[in-house]
Amino acid sequence: MTKKTGTTKKSPATPVLSAFTHASYVYTGEMIRKKDGRKLEPADVSAVEDGAIVFDQKKIHWIGPARELPKIYKSVKATDLKRKQAIMPGLIDSHTHLVFAGSRAQEFARRCAGATYQEIADEGGGILTTVNATREASEAELFELALKRALIAYRYGIRTIECKSGYGLDHDAEMKCLKVVKHLREALPQMTFVSTYLGAHAFPKDRRRTEYIDEMVRKTIPEVAEKSLAEFCDVFIDEGYYSIEEGERVLRAAKKAGIKTKVHADELANTESAHLAAKLGANSADHLLKISDYGVESLAESSTVATLLPGTALYLKENFAPARDLLDKGAKVAIATDFNPGTCYSLNLPLMMNLSALYMKMNSAEIFAGVTYSAACALGLEATKGTLDVGMDSDFVVLPYDCFEEMYYRLGW
Amino acid sequence: MTKKTGTTKKSPATPVLSAFTHASYVYTGEMIRKKDGRKLEPADVSAVEDGAIVFDQKKIHWIGPARELPKIYKSVKATDLKRKQAIMPGLIDSHTHLVFAGSRAQEFARRCAGATYQEIADEGGGILTTVNATREASEAELFELALKRALIAYRYGIRTIECKSGYGLDHDAEMKCLKVVKHLREALPQMTFVSTYLGAHAFPKDRRRTEYIDEMVRKTIPEVAEKSLAEFCDVFIDEGYYSIEEGERVLRAAKKAGIKTKVHADELANTESAHLAAKLGANSADHLLKISDYGVESLAESSTVATLLPGTALYLKENFAPARDLLDKGAKVAIATDFNPGTCYSLNLPLMMNLSALYMKMNSAEIFAGVTYSAACALGLEATKGTLDVGMDSDFVVLPYDCFEEMYYRLGW
Repeated sequence: MTKKTGTTKKSPATPVLSAFTHASYVYTGEMIRKKDGRKLEPADVSAVEDGAIVFDQKKIHWIGPARELPKIYKSVKATDLKRKQAIMPGLIDSHTHLVFAGSRAQEFARRCAGATYQEIADEGGGILTTVNATREASEAELFELALKRALIAYRYGIRTIECKSGYGLDHDAEMKCLKVVKHLREALPQMTFVSTYLGAHAFPKDRRRTEYIDEMVRKTIPEVAEKSLAEFCDVFIDEGYYSIEEGERVLRAAKKAGIKTKVHADELANTESAHLAAKLGANSADHLLKISDYGVESLAESSTVATLLPGTALYLKENFAPARDLLDKGAKVAIATDFNPGTCYSLNLPLMMNLSALYMKMNSAEIFAGVTYSAACALGLEATKGTLDVGMDSDFVVLPYDCFEEMYYRLGW
Repeated sequence: MTKKTGTTKKSPATPVLSAFTHASYVYTGEMIRKKDGRKLEPADVSAVEDGAIVFDQKKIHWIGPARELPKIYKSVKATDLKRKQAIMPGLIDSHTHLVFAGSRAQEFARRCAGATYQEIADEGGGILTTVNATREASEAELFELALKRALIAYRYGIRTIECKSGYGLDHDAEMKCLKVVKHLREALPQMTFVSTYLGAHAFPKDRRRTEYIDEMVRKTIPEVAEKSLAEFCDVFIDEGYYSIEEGERVLRAAKKAGIKTKVHADELANTESAHLAAKLGANSADHLLKISDYGVESLAESSTVATLLPGTALYLKENFAPARDLLDKGAKVAIATDFNPGTCYSLNLPLMMNLSALYMKMNSAEIFAGVTYSAACALGLEATKGTLDVGMDSDFVVLPYDCFEEMYYRLGW
């Protein structure tokens, strides 16, 4: 090994501290973390009234009532929020399909106005439009599109966002999409990007079913693991998509390669894929519009998070997922956007919180947990994100209003 | 009269021309204006592809394909949109309750999670919270709140916004709210504010019913007219609110005073108030969740615009208004937010367009008309706003995307 020369060894820099004082509330989510999935009451958001938070670039140093701010922090550069603004953990959108090319705006307009799926398909519409456009797009073009979307998510208070591949549907195009997420991570260090390999999103039209699964299991998953291109592997198990057996094969290959798992489960029909997710110890089972009682019980007895996507139910005009049943039986419930070009073109996580209140009867602590602690669990990040405590990440947002409920009282803005 | 002295008479300034060229589309809405309520096909948005528009601060001078730009405009300062951005008339939100004080975020959260109306009322919640806060607020405080909201509406492409009073429920407090709209007009000349007196929004708890109506008819309406504080008068005719007879009395008093009319019609129950609106020649009948076939026929045969508020249906978990029936029978349909603190806390007009597509099966031209031409008709502004043509107002928006449908393909952003 060649010894490096010419560099000056620096002593480790003392972290520069900052503070916000007199927040109307600092919502720490402490009780949510302690209860870890047990039934939540509104007070469990653990609001510190007239609160202060002291932090450096990386970690939180102190949280408490402003009047109890320790003397050692009195000289820290502080912003007085005058009890007009609240602080909460950075929002976590734990289910998005952020990386794709092409627009399906015209198709959406035509479909809503009555064009049939067949008419749309005959015109080359549907998911194939997106797959073709994504395959044709360069990595740089995909990056530009995803970057714009990430910045919009940021405006809604989202600081951690999960990004799935799945519109490439072949080895090279899927790898290209995963590299875009890596690039996003470098370009926007103020956000945390979690990468999920969803090669098993649909079947490519140009390949035999088993041949494509073989490619994923034998080639893509090992390469994704070796190059650390994804923390998660996800499979769309549903009628007309991957069967339970096919899904299990892909997920087991991922686990073997050291990649954590998620499942698109029981969305269009009940396939007991939520049960499979729990059985395999997946971090989350997502969608669940058609989950059975058995599936609910399976999730309630496991640590697998039930990730609900109410915007998709709205888009599909389906009944919303049985959030109350899941919560009352003890499942941990996350809320996410499912941002994608076909069934939910939304980056607005607060809107999903609004729908969760209106149509899934979730209380404020359950909604809070759904976009913070429980979403962190769905991504395996609960040790550092999703709640606020000394030593945890300086990952919080200062809201432009004085109470967290305002975020979802607003309908879509 | 004293003759003014000391002022220098200036020759009228030549208007400074500007232009946008190579818009992906300039959507003029020309055919929508020509058809004036007859059934619309998507092509009726009248899109000029690769278009240009020449305008001064006040009026439009020329619209057409960029390649046909007349020589006399070649030297005009132009912005090249590179066919990546479209131009459409400024959006018109023709039904909002913009002026009020107080927050009902906590109440919303509690109500969604299962608290009963009685529990909320016992805690002093509901509309009374808003009336009390609005009465207590100063005109300056109300102005600050409304200004913030107007600026958010502006971000969604809204350039004309109707603002109702109705949370004062006594002469002085109602006048205070109407003055706020006057002040908004001065503060934000880039937007058009239409003021509506809605004293008959509910009944004040501290007055006898007839006494309050007498006050409106004999004192407030004449004073509003004299001081030109409102272009419209609106009445909430519904079960538990104003009866058809009471509503008609207020509306006739307004007409007599030279104020145009609108009606909150058939929202919670059918009272045939849509028919009344048509009979009185009101500019619009709004809500219509419970409109009867008779009401639909009445609107179809009149020039009264059916203003639909799909966000309110979503908030109330009611069926959406029968848009298809109204449109197919020949009524003119506008779409608005109904921004208000109780039943639709939304400033996001594009979200209402999305709901209109998803849940009211409206086609792209119908949705376009709903937030432009038909909304202009609902406010009596169709001669100058809502479509783009030479001589009409320079009231248009440059979209950050290349087709209008993208605006409502997006769910809430």
